[in-house]
Amino acid sequence: MPETHIQTAFDRDLESIQATIMKMGGLVEAAITDAARALDERDETLADAVRANDKAIDDLETSVNEEAIRVIAMRQPTAVDLRTIVSVMKVSGNLERIGDYSKNIAKRATVLTQMSQIHDTSPAIRRMAQAVELMLQDALDAYIKRDPKLAEDVILRDAEVDQMYNALFRQFLTYMMEDPRNITGCMHLHFIAKNIERMGDHVTGIAEQVVYLVTGSLPADERPKADRTSFQKVAEE
Amino acid sequence: MPETHIQTAFDRDLESIQATIMKMGGLVEAAITDAARALDERDETLADAVRANDKAIDDLETSVNEEAIRVIAMRQPTAVDLRTIVSVMKVSGNLERIGDYSKNIAKRATVLTQMSQIHDTSPAIRRMAQAVELMLQDALDAYIKRDPKLAEDVILRDAEVDQMYNALFRQFLTYMMEDPRNITGCMHLHFIAKNIERMGDHVTGIAEQVVYLVTGSLPADERPKADRTSFQKVAEE
Repeated sequence: MPETHIQTAFDRDLESIQATIMKMGGLVEAAITDAARALDERDETLADAVRANDKAIDDLETSVNEEAIRVIAMRQPTAVDLRTIVSVMKVSGNLERIGDYSKNIAKRATVLTQMSQIHDTSPAIRRMAQAVELMLQDALDAYIKRDPKLAEDVILRDAEVDQMYNALFRQFLTYMMEDPRNITGCMHLHFIAKNIERMGDHVTGIAEQVVYLVTGSLPADERPKADRTSFQKVAEE
Repeated sequence: MPETHIQTAFDRDLESIQATIMKMGGLVEAAITDAARALDERDETLADAVRANDKAIDDLETSVNEEAIRVIAMRQPTAVDLRTIVSVMKVSGNLERIGDYSKNIAKRATVLTQMSQIHDTSPAIRRMAQAVELMLQDALDAYIKRDPKLAEDVILRDAEVDQMYNALFRQFLTYMMEDPRNITGCMHLHFIAKNIERMGDHVTGIAEQVVYLVTGSLPADERPKADRTSFQKVAEE
């Protein structure tokens, strides 16, 4: 039986907010890709562009929040509609944070262009960023289609990103021990890797909202948490 | 002329939410202090307690959000009241993040108890945490009293925390270059210092909400940003 659905004023409001979310998503995806490319290709102009573009992402988040609050105040939504609106605000919050991390990566990329390259780490970082960017694409896709299966898949993939981060963390320790002249550069690269790992957490947050929207409850807090470095006692030697 | 004020249903709702915020604030202040003490005194039991207590902070944030949304949906607040409710959600969001950073510090403190102490860094970290904890006390005080002057003072003090972080960052680089056996420990300590610096940013976020509540606009984005390490090219040598 096909679902019938009467378009209400609330639905129209929601669609308009979701359109803004998608626009934000597009900008954030570009920011991730460009920040990692700027690092890998030592492209200062691109890094500057990523930093400048973050303002647009922030502005969209503000407008999503204002719009959402306006809709809640005006439409007195039902419990289910309220849940949807709250999820919209969470998703835009996650996107804004990912944008911030991209900006921070671009900032450090600029510094790193002025230092000698450390082994072959930036392609690995770029691959990690790519994995997160693909996760984000799918998370937003799952969000628009209300597809909890795709969302669960995104949540699982975050473990791979965490593993990439762990591998990089060990590499950086090794390079630093090998040659003290690598230390400053590796500190920056490590922060970059950590920022990408955190982006993955925020993408997971978006995917969790999809599950919440469809099922009414957040996935149990047993999602794979594979960043073990805060427990790491010694480097592999 | 004394201000007259008729207590409305909205005011009562707001008071109840603000009481929850204050409770959260108390827990978060304790988390900051205890995490830094656990690190400094190598107290694993205390570190475990900080990690376990974070759940209570998260739960309070959820209840603040649910309550706020319920009030918006039920009371159809005026523009000014709406602004107040939105600020309540932002403040609880900031508190929750500070709690998370404390938890993360406690996690790393546990690891560090199993390593040999690196020079005399943990007292400096503890002082930095203390500065942030005092800022938080004042920010919450400013929030309850709607005191923009005190809030502005908190915002200015964040620059001191950033400077403490910069000094620690340089120290860690020096210790790592001095002796590669310090590298792993310094990486953890550096993350701890960075987490405290980020806590300061979130306290600043709370203080900014006070300014927003009273004046209707956020302070101009010219607040002192004194973490210069993402621009730092070389360590002092």
